[in-house]
Amino acid sequence: MPKEVITTRAKDYNQWYLDIVREADLAEVAEVVRGCIVFKPTGWAIWEMMQRALDDRIKETGHSNVQFPLLIPKSFIMKEAEHVDGFAPEVAEVTRAGGEDLTEPYVIRPTSETIIGHFYSKWIRSYRDLPLLYNQWCNVMRWEMRTRPFLRTSEFIWQEGHTAHVNEAEAEAETLKILHEVYADFAEQVMAVPVIRGLKTENEKFPGALRSYCIEAMMQDGRALQAGTSHNLGQNFAKAFEITYTDHNNTVQHAWTTSWGVSTRLIGALIMTHSDDEGLVIPPRLAPIQVVVVPIFKNDAEREKVMATVHALTSTWKGVLRFKIDDRDNLSPGFKFNEWEMKGVPVRIEVGPKDVEKGSVAIARRDIPGREGKSFVPQEGLTERIRDLLEAIQQALFERALRFREQHSADVQSYEELKVQVERGFARAYWAGSSADEKRIQEETRATIRCIPLDQPGTPGICVYTGKETTQQVIFARAY
Amino acid sequence: MPKEVITTRAKDYNQWYLDIVREADLAEVAEVVRGCIVFKPTGWAIWEMMQRALDDRIKETGHSNVQFPLLIPKSFIMKEAEHVDGFAPEVAEVTRAGGEDLTEPYVIRPTSETIIGHFYSKWIRSYRDLPLLYNQWCNVMRWEMRTRPFLRTSEFIWQEGHTAHVNEAEAEAETLKILHEVYADFAEQVMAVPVIRGLKTENEKFPGALRSYCIEAMMQDGRALQAGTSHNLGQNFAKAFEITYTDHNNTVQHAWTTSWGVSTRLIGALIMTHSDDEGLVIPPRLAPIQVVVVPIFKNDAEREKVMATVHALTSTWKGVLRFKIDDRDNLSPGFKFNEWEMKGVPVRIEVGPKDVEKGSVAIARRDIPGREGKSFVPQEGLTERIRDLLEAIQQALFERALRFREQHSADVQSYEELKVQVERGFARAYWAGSSADEKRIQEETRATIRCIPLDQPGTPGICVYTGKETTQQVIFARAY
Repeated sequence: MPKEVITTRAKDYNQWYLDIVREADLAEVAEVVRGCIVFKPTGWAIWEMMQRALDDRIKETGHSNVQFPLLIPKSFIMKEAEHVDGFAPEVAEVTRAGGEDLTEPYVIRPTSETIIGHFYSKWIRSYRDLPLLYNQWCNVMRWEMRTRPFLRTSEFIWQEGHTAHVNEAEAEAETLKILHEVYADFAEQVMAVPVIRGLKTENEKFPGALRSYCIEAMMQDGRALQAGTSHNLGQNFAKAFEITYTDHNNTVQHAWTTSWGVSTRLIGALIMTHSDDEGLVIPPRLAPIQVVVVPIFKNDAEREKVMATVHALTSTWKGVLRFKIDDRDNLSPGFKFNEWEMKGVPVRIEVGPKDVEKGSVAIARRDIPGREGKSFVPQEGLTERIRDLLEAIQQALFERALRFREQHSADVQSYEELKVQVERGFARAYWAGSSADEKRIQEETRATIRCIPLDQPGTPGICVYTGKETTQQVIFARAY
Repeated sequence: MPKEVITTRAKDYNQWYLDIVREADLAEVAEVVRGCIVFKPTGWAIWEMMQRALDDRIKETGHSNVQFPLLIPKSFIMKEAEHVDGFAPEVAEVTRAGGEDLTEPYVIRPTSETIIGHFYSKWIRSYRDLPLLYNQWCNVMRWEMRTRPFLRTSEFIWQEGHTAHVNEAEAEAETLKILHEVYADFAEQVMAVPVIRGLKTENEKFPGALRSYCIEAMMQDGRALQAGTSHNLGQNFAKAFEITYTDHNNTVQHAWTTSWGVSTRLIGALIMTHSDDEGLVIPPRLAPIQVVVVPIFKNDAEREKVMATVHALTSTWKGVLRFKIDDRDNLSPGFKFNEWEMKGVPVRIEVGPKDVEKGSVAIARRDIPGREGKSFVPQEGLTERIRDLLEAIQQALFERALRFREQHSADVQSYEELKVQVERGFARAYWAGSSADEKRIQEETRATIRCIPLDQPGTPGICVYTGKETTQQVIFARAY
């Protein structure tokens, strides 16, 4: 596996991304199923790690998992006006089954608000049935024109939470709780990806939502990636599907609902935040293998000596570290180093005959390639040292990504400055423009308002486009 | 939730099953999507427990998880002759997507041998690439005519393992390893469901397999339920999809493949093995809630005293026991007892004002309803006592199910005896008949050969149907 198989980022960022996906055994484009991918072992193992960490947070915040059908009667998609416009053009339709044409076609769920709305209308009767706090992990399908592994695929895997509440305040609190306690916390603490929490503009919100919140991350090419969304759906779906409840005064009311999701596109965000020209870089909390141990020997006598040390060193690691001993006989240490670097394993331990004599090992950090990240340490206390190092790497990756974002973000005072800044990263701008203004800017610059950050300066300024005074700042960027 | 909502087993076993599914909050029939169900919180939580235990075993036996696309080009299904006959009649077809008719339709996977075969043919080049040991957790769809929650639904969730090997011996060893170390071990140790391990006859094997192995369980009405299958696919799919490798002698060979799966129908098996007229019974190792604590009080003063004891007793339980404190104020203890009995929680702890004074609690076993399963024990050492009790319950459920199966199994010497025995359970019979004989017996008795048990008597006997001498025994039963 020679290193040249990965194009450098400087040369071609898009090709670099595809090379990483292929060489790190993450995924393969399934050319026989339009716009779909096969998740290969490392890619799926990372997703399982993500899923576990997200699922823990979803359950800790009081939600239960359920599972609704894959198919939705086509008529359901048509019931909520904005939702139709948003999703009807990109659904896949099942028109035949069991050898017969169906009288009413089904669509493969592009998202499940409609079918879940149907069931919520049956299950919810009284204020005592609320809040209803459910989530599901499943596959969904949107027939996308231009696809890219993880970032945009026809079929993708995600979780979608769907909740129902007695009033707007509770629905809003739920929407924000998910944004902060589940999504932003997961992105920053587990993925080591710093995110901006904000509100979507009308142009960018979910079809059918009252308000959409999001977390936005910056990739290494300065573009934004929407890493998760949480929607206050107001009473829109409750009205379309007649989700009603009887309140304390025995009056029938429409419920307020929310929905929120993150998907396998997070794997794309992970790659484009941390990886480098040597291959994948995975933060320790998500790494399926955190430590790889490579024994080094030239003959059977050395092998025996080295392996005895390796087994002694790792004897207490089960359940403490996720590790692998790479004792394959037919490959050179150099080949193995490259392979595990390519696959993003955070820490590599090398043990050779001299290490056995000296009571030392070599330890190499994946986040700092080359000599700089390598050191020689005593075997004594190795487990503790590795655990500390994993925490340090987790922290260092987050800080590096945060520094990168700060270096590639700037306040812009004019439309000219905005045009220049979106070439290199995020442009923070005061904004009092219309949806039409926003669309015009998109046509001219390919940048959109990624979000209205929840964290606002609180001081007034001049709108970058209309020249009006306003207190509202937004983030403009090109997006994935 | 009055108990009368559950029909007794004696009165109507099928209705009893549907009542349990509904009242224990396991699933709801999704009448708007033909043959599908919604998995409700308790049902899905049990599946998550099953999934975790199975996934651990699948990984421990050396397999990696991956994920292939939901859709399969329709032409793929047609490539393996037996597979076409088995699956083509029951697929759901996607004929339109993104607003256009598709030139080649896709089918929603009924099982993934074909699309995985396509990729394996690309990935496998040399004997060094083998064995390839992959598994996926996913949804599949088979347009079934008669459906029943969990047992037979159009969409279901399962795992499907797909492996490729250099020769027949290795494929056969894999097939049997999965049968014993993954499926039978999980069924008996985790589900507390005793199973018979056996080989399917030609009539009952997987379409496209060389040999199909299975585990068969007995339900409380004496009928058999196939709880998992493991197939040696021979070279059938390797030939249909050109999965070839170069061997040590540089000769191109077809690989040998296997596939194996268990599904959400296991939830049906769980219900019909252990549950009773009071509701669901879940073995402790699968119970999302193992212990429910019900505080008993009449006024605020009592409430305060009782809850202090409850919190003290449970303070060390997190991470040790899966438990819930049911401190809902608006419901009576009796109502709560019924509800948790209905939902199958293995152990109930009751704490009232007298218990606080006496330093005791009441402890009730779900597997022994009524007074007989209830005792009063000291608060001291409660955690240890509960852990021991959970193990005892797990064991007792297995033994009860095993005793039931033995009591409802019999050796039969004649076709007349066979006809009588399949009315009440399993009929063990010597068998030297043909596939046509087997079909005739099915028409006349509704019983089929569930399997040829791996455990054979080794002594000859007379075939129950043809009168020929043979050493082969089989199990006849009616099946779900």
